[in-house]
Amino acid sequence: MPVLFLRNIMISVNWRNQIDKIRFLFNSKRESYFLFYDILGFFPHHIQYYEHALLHKSIAVRSQKTGRLINNERLEFLGDAILDAVVGDLVYSCFSHSHEGFLTNLRSKIVQRDSLNKLAVEIGLDKLIKCDLPSPTHNHSLCGNALEALIGAIYLDRGYSYCKWFFENRIINRYIDLEKLARKEVNFKSKLVEWSQKNKIEVSFELIEQFFDKHNNPMFQTEVLISGISCGYGVGYSKKESQQKASEMAIKKIRKNKEIDSLFFEK
Amino acid sequence: MPVLFLRNIMISVNWRNQIDKIRFLFNSKRESYFLFYDILGFFPHHIQYYEHALLHKSIAVRSQKTGRLINNERLEFLGDAILDAVVGDLVYSCFSHSHEGFLTNLRSKIVQRDSLNKLAVEIGLDKLIKCDLPSPTHNHSLCGNALEALIGAIYLDRGYSYCKWFFENRIINRYIDLEKLARKEVNFKSKLVEWSQKNKIEVSFELIEQFFDKHNNPMFQTEVLISGISCGYGVGYSKKESQQKASEMAIKKIRKNKEIDSLFFEK
Repeated sequence: MPVLFLRNIMISVNWRNQIDKIRFLFNSKRESYFLFYDILGFFPHHIQYYEHALLHKSIAVRSQKTGRLINNERLEFLGDAILDAVVGDLVYSCFSHSHEGFLTNLRSKIVQRDSLNKLAVEIGLDKLIKCDLPSPTHNHSLCGNALEALIGAIYLDRGYSYCKWFFENRIINRYIDLEKLARKEVNFKSKLVEWSQKNKIEVSFELIEQFFDKHNNPMFQTEVLISGISCGYGVGYSKKESQQKASEMAIKKIRKNKEIDSLFFEK
Repeated sequence: MPVLFLRNIMISVNWRNQIDKIRFLFNSKRESYFLFYDILGFFPHHIQYYEHALLHKSIAVRSQKTGRLINNERLEFLGDAILDAVVGDLVYSCFSHSHEGFLTNLRSKIVQRDSLNKLAVEIGLDKLIKCDLPSPTHNHSLCGNALEALIGAIYLDRGYSYCKWFFENRIINRYIDLEKLARKEVNFKSKLVEWSQKNKIEVSFELIEQFFDKHNNPMFQTEVLISGISCGYGVGYSKKESQQKASEMAIKKIRKNKEIDSLFFEK
């Protein structure tokens, strides 16, 4: 995106903020407006989008306009995609000579559930979420989902460029060291083992095959079994590498497929 | 995004096109400019982005600026995310009361590989792709990938709003009936069987378990095996539904994980 355009956005944000600060001082919802200002770095135009983004599905709120029950799941759908685009653009620009495999990896480190949950807590979004759960802190995706929904709200309220401005200036520049993150290797095996211990589910690794590649290097294929069910496998130049890849596949499967997740938790 | 903003984009596209038409008549690359105009509905500002989007990795082109070998894979990474955001926004606005599960499904029907390949051919992008393959038409992802890279090029050249304008006006409104597509059910089982026959790989379905849900309805769990390896399973209220879900999981696994794909093709 042209630099001049982004500079214009910044000038526009600063200039609008001064006017809005005076305007919202006399608004009946001024407390809400200023709370969101602290998080966003600008004032909402339509505060109902942001309020909507913080409604977890456990709480039933009826829309005043349509009479339907509303929660933040639709906004989360929208925000999830916008976030991928925004982070995709940022890593594309920052690492101008890197291969797309590296970019995909780096983006997924930023937008993965754990990372978004932490970021949501760091910007103080967790305190504003409205939910009706016995132990909301145990619902691991709640905060990250609300952050995605917030991006969806910014998009509807101010458009794509503000989403980019927000994520770059209020999140990345404050909480993420891109260079450091790029070098960080995710240990999928330990993540999977941690998950299995927490949920008391058996996880085992089985070496299926050992063979040689075309250059005669030894290769290993490992299968990961969760409660005896095959949930992923990986091929690598060491047992460790193959276990790491198998774990990555199993984690993705668990995270993406709510059906599997509930299947295991029901056990 | 505000309607007024989008109307302004449309006026701006029409107005700029008239000036650009005269300007590019005297440009040495006028043929290229007019070719892209036919596809995009507007003239490129920086034509090199668009030329870059059409370079398949099989062809080695060296950048005049950096001296590095370039292809369209990085632009494809960028365009893929932008496309998800654009289509996400479109289905979110068109189906204002639909559940996010429905929206996710509908979006994936539009952005899935087969669909993007067809769209790329319909807008005539396939004829412009530069590649060095013995039978490019057999590379199924080539056209769809180029379309994603084109979206990446539009994003870098003109920004997000033009990507949205392009996909809405030049693709969705011309080639996709959203209401009809929303009703269309994807038959994952037949897709998987088709793939197995084509690649001569054995696929089998095994009923693992039959049980009852809490309301005493019978339920089925099916596992799908590809070459004897477990590649997915599904739970449903009929055998057909459970096979359908298991096939969907296996297809996703094959498509997302190039390692698995190559593993099967090597057999």
